[in-house]
Amino acid sequence: MPKGVPERGSIPDDGLTTRQRRQQPVLAIHTGTGKGKSTAAFGMAMRAWNQGFDIGVFQFVKSAKWRVGEETALRALGDAHLASGIGGPVEWHKMGEGWSWIRKHGDDADHAEAAREGWAEIARRLASERHRFYLLDEFTYPLKWGWIEVSEVVEALRARPGNQHVVITGRDAPPELIAAADLVTEMTKIKHPMDAGRKGQRGIEW
Amino acid sequence: MPKGVPERGSIPDDGLTTRQRRQQPVLAIHTGTGKGKSTAAFGMAMRAWNQGFDIGVFQFVKSAKWRVGEETALRALGDAHLASGIGGPVEWHKMGEGWSWIRKHGDDADHAEAAREGWAEIARRLASERHRFYLLDEFTYPLKWGWIEVSEVVEALRARPGNQHVVITGRDAPPELIAAADLVTEMTKIKHPMDAGRKGQRGIEW
Repeated sequence: MPKGVPERGSIPDDGLTTRQRRQQPVLAIHTGTGKGKSTAAFGMAMRAWNQGFDIGVFQFVKSAKWRVGEETALRALGDAHLASGIGGPVEWHKMGEGWSWIRKHGDDADHAEAAREGWAEIARRLASERHRFYLLDEFTYPLKWGWIEVSEVVEALRARPGNQHVVITGRDAPPELIAAADLVTEMTKIKHPMDAGRKGQRGIEW
Repeated sequence: MPKGVPERGSIPDDGLTTRQRRQQPVLAIHTGTGKGKSTAAFGMAMRAWNQGFDIGVFQFVKSAKWRVGEETALRALGDAHLASGIGGPVEWHKMGEGWSWIRKHGDDADHAEAAREGWAEIARRLASERHRFYLLDEFTYPLKWGWIEVSEVVEALRARPGNQHVVITGRDAPPELIAAADLVTEMTKIKHPMDAGRKGQRGIEW
């Protein structure tokens, strides 16, 4: 695990102090075909919560049933923040049920449009430094399907002010996004119980 | 993401119903040199908590400073269970501060012995079905260093009664353990900010 020792090269000649280098915004991507991409992102959200960061979760999936455990737990942590001041506040927005900031809740028949609306709102929030930690869950899919322009996303992420961390999950992260990221991890399946015809397990898969 | 459809082969000829197959104990391993091994395991613990599972976390590391966010968050979830009945109870034990169930807190100078004591307690808990979800964080290291016999661990895991899920994290998971596991994910680093001499970020790394 990281001990703060650079693995390649030495201390960068960027004129920054160690303290300044600890306060830089991170763009992280969890990609690959294995499990744990979103799960690790939600684990990061727990750490961010503990630091008192304002957390915004944006789920780019039609059905949210697979995240019910994470949502309940993160909302409970948000409630703990409201009740006793520990940790940070948590907002959770789902594309699949109509984005929470939009008043009319249609049937979301046009998923491409819903995804674009979601991204437009995230771009506004980044510009206004609304959150400190953004989790864009399964955001690679609307990029992959051409619903949202990758170059537009990369530009908005590169231009984001302040110290806002962004974690993006999903398979097939586009190369331009990977190029713009600070931290990219690929999750690879070595063995999965469903290969043997086993079913998803309550408390493990959801 | 899993849709419950077996990826290879068809429904196994094991005489079990789908419901029974959803109630099988899972042994999961997160290994590889990338980030997210433990983080994803703690994300799984959030899901298990949401199902009301009794959670036991066992940290096989000398210093626990890198897990303070997860610990605070999971303990807050355990408190929420005690206060309002949501989720499940959470126990957190650290080798680095002397295992919590041992009264005398020495300086833990003999890490090999401390690791063996930790495993012995986990084996007892597995035999008595003390928890429903076990997180053995960085448990591959005492195995790798020969402090604990891999064959003994595999035997105890194979023989565990009931429906107890176990998640083990750490690099270089031994082949016998991988062979015994149901779900194995390898986390691979594609890009890491520390490669560029950047420091760990508060709220991201810890």
